[in-house]
Amino acid sequence: MVDPLMLKLGEERSAIRELFEYGSARKREIGEDNVFDFSIGNPSVPAPACVREEIARLLTEMPPETLHGYSSAPGLPEVRRAVAQYIETAFGVPMSASLVYMTCGASASLVAALSAILQEGEEVIVPAPFFPEYAVFVRTAGGKLLPVPTDKSFHLDLTAIERAIGSRTRAVLVNSPNNPTGAVYGEGEMRALGELLRRKSAQFGAPIYLVADEPYRELTYGAKPVYPMAVYENTLVLYSFSKSLSLAGERIGYIAVSPRCARAEEVFAAVCGAGRAHGYVCAPTLFQRVVSACLGEVSDVEVYRANRDLLYTSLSDMGYACTVPEGAFYLFVKALEEDAKAFAERAKAHELLLVPSDSFGVRGYVRISYCVPRRTIERSLPAFRALMDDYAR
Amino acid sequence: MVDPLMLKLGEERSAIRELFEYGSARKREIGEDNVFDFSIGNPSVPAPACVREEIARLLTEMPPETLHGYSSAPGLPEVRRAVAQYIETAFGVPMSASLVYMTCGASASLVAALSAILQEGEEVIVPAPFFPEYAVFVRTAGGKLLPVPTDKSFHLDLTAIERAIGSRTRAVLVNSPNNPTGAVYGEGEMRALGELLRRKSAQFGAPIYLVADEPYRELTYGAKPVYPMAVYENTLVLYSFSKSLSLAGERIGYIAVSPRCARAEEVFAAVCGAGRAHGYVCAPTLFQRVVSACLGEVSDVEVYRANRDLLYTSLSDMGYACTVPEGAFYLFVKALEEDAKAFAERAKAHELLLVPSDSFGVRGYVRISYCVPRRTIERSLPAFRALMDDYAR
Repeated sequence: MVDPLMLKLGEERSAIRELFEYGSARKREIGEDNVFDFSIGNPSVPAPACVREEIARLLTEMPPETLHGYSSAPGLPEVRRAVAQYIETAFGVPMSASLVYMTCGASASLVAALSAILQEGEEVIVPAPFFPEYAVFVRTAGGKLLPVPTDKSFHLDLTAIERAIGSRTRAVLVNSPNNPTGAVYGEGEMRALGELLRRKSAQFGAPIYLVADEPYRELTYGAKPVYPMAVYENTLVLYSFSKSLSLAGERIGYIAVSPRCARAEEVFAAVCGAGRAHGYVCAPTLFQRVVSACLGEVSDVEVYRANRDLLYTSLSDMGYACTVPEGAFYLFVKALEEDAKAFAERAKAHELLLVPSDSFGVRGYVRISYCVPRRTIERSLPAFRALMDDYAR
Repeated sequence: MVDPLMLKLGEERSAIRELFEYGSARKREIGEDNVFDFSIGNPSVPAPACVREEIARLLTEMPPETLHGYSSAPGLPEVRRAVAQYIETAFGVPMSASLVYMTCGASASLVAALSAILQEGEEVIVPAPFFPEYAVFVRTAGGKLLPVPTDKSFHLDLTAIERAIGSRTRAVLVNSPNNPTGAVYGEGEMRALGELLRRKSAQFGAPIYLVADEPYRELTYGAKPVYPMAVYENTLVLYSFSKSLSLAGERIGYIAVSPRCARAEEVFAAVCGAGRAHGYVCAPTLFQRVVSACLGEVSDVEVYRANRDLLYTSLSDMGYACTVPEGAFYLFVKALEEDAKAFAERAKAHELLLVPSDSFGVRGYVRISYCVPRRTIERSLPAFRALMDDYAR
């Protein structure tokens, strides 16, 4: 009666969303302050002032039928120009407004980009752990996700990637700063990845695309991520303002196809076709204008840094094994037993909502989203200690 | 190198979008006032005051990290409750918040609903003429679009629908008030359609869904369209605020699954799964709240009525054959030669941008979107007369 795959996707929500819904219900039961909800990457830092100011200005100065009207499918021309110019200035690479496609956020970007470049059965290599919905989106695009391991600090294992590349490889999908590990890939490893993809593209006689999912680009604690287009030509950068401007619910981002990409115009046309096929008429027009006015602005990263430092230091001191996050707002922590799901269940008994790592493509870890009020972390520390004690007994 | 179908969809834009883009370029060339752009259904009437007021209130009263944060995938609970209550009150049918799924507009609703209910190769019957993107969305959902003729006034031909229904029929997709004809289906024909679907569902042992695409529900000139859930149980209503609140660019709407639908919860879960598969994380949260506060409000329909009357009377007087639209803001006019594309090309020479009917699934007509400033219609009349003269010569 209904499509069985869609039913399955609807009934088995992602582990993250499942926990988020559980947390919302649990908060209603026992009070918001008594649930330590580290489930979802929902920014806790307010949007920068420019967001509110620009909305207010637009409401006053622009006729509503213009402000809220359709844009062209790839976006408002002036917004696409502003984004292209920003990329050129901030990252020192050539960019063209005609290759910028405004989207309804990172997930929409992934669906459109992957559907554009993948033909039935082609493979996408992704370093694990990875954002679980990648598997869903690659399947929607008719492709096959091929996870490869990362090294001990969750950085790229180029040997593993090289070994995985074959004649059916169409893309390598990287996410740096990384969800769920907080790893930020260095310029050296990204250049080496570019070199590898260049060599393999030549070997197989077709471009292997670098798809860079970059919603956390500005959320780093010292590291400055290299711009992917600077290290490799066949690159699509997928950006979202969800995290940098704390606009996760407003669904606004873009796909930028590198002008150095082979047949860039065709790739871009396929992106437009994929957006159309999936019902994306245009990105929300008010927020297209808002982000265009706020390019380069970032929510206060220092709040996340303070959270990271408190959480990392406290958990390390208690005896938890974790790698210090270089970016994003996730801490990836070794579970205290092999089965991460069982560990997350025991954590739940202490009202700690941690996402088990299985759906991220690795076993034995949990992800802690520390984009939460600082008091949530402070109040959660006894619970983390009690959880540790559970296992010490 | 890229997916050939996506490339094709990207390169061959819809006839409507193609003309819209041509119009935008042409206006830059010869001035906005000199192009009579009747291409796209972009509301020309401002959003009701409640839209601006509610945005301003939310900006003042709600912390931005709450206002712009993620909602649950089907929408904010309070918004879903408000929509369900509105449907119950306004249309006198039972509705449940748990069966309301907030979407990024009508196209997103169509992709999610069709992907949910269609399995590979199943058929969707649609009365022609129809909104051309239906063909794209049905294909994305893995189904097959089966157009059936309407009667002379573009109303339902139930005999044709009955003849078309077979064992592979999964849905009938209706759009009333209709784009492109302005027809509003009467209660009688809708009840007869419900009766037919009930009988055929029983015959084939599986529900045939009624999918009602209703972005123009409130835009009528006397007719009050019956609520589809009131005439048939296996109904999904797809709604968008694009036209009623003049918010076409903001991408906000909903899917409502009738509680009387067989296995309604499963259908709803499949809708959620389909939204997830296509990258729809949640509907834009600011506008979820805005539309929830503006339920029942409508942009000034009298402006469209005046446009309709002027255009219909003037063109009829000139000798054009057209049916008076009962709703929406489109006039469907017989082309002055068999080939509607050739006719639309000749119209272009007079700066009249009319969409040929071929992609709507019928031949020999053009669609005129009269959601334009009144002066556009006034100034266009000599051009329509000149076009008629072209053919009189």
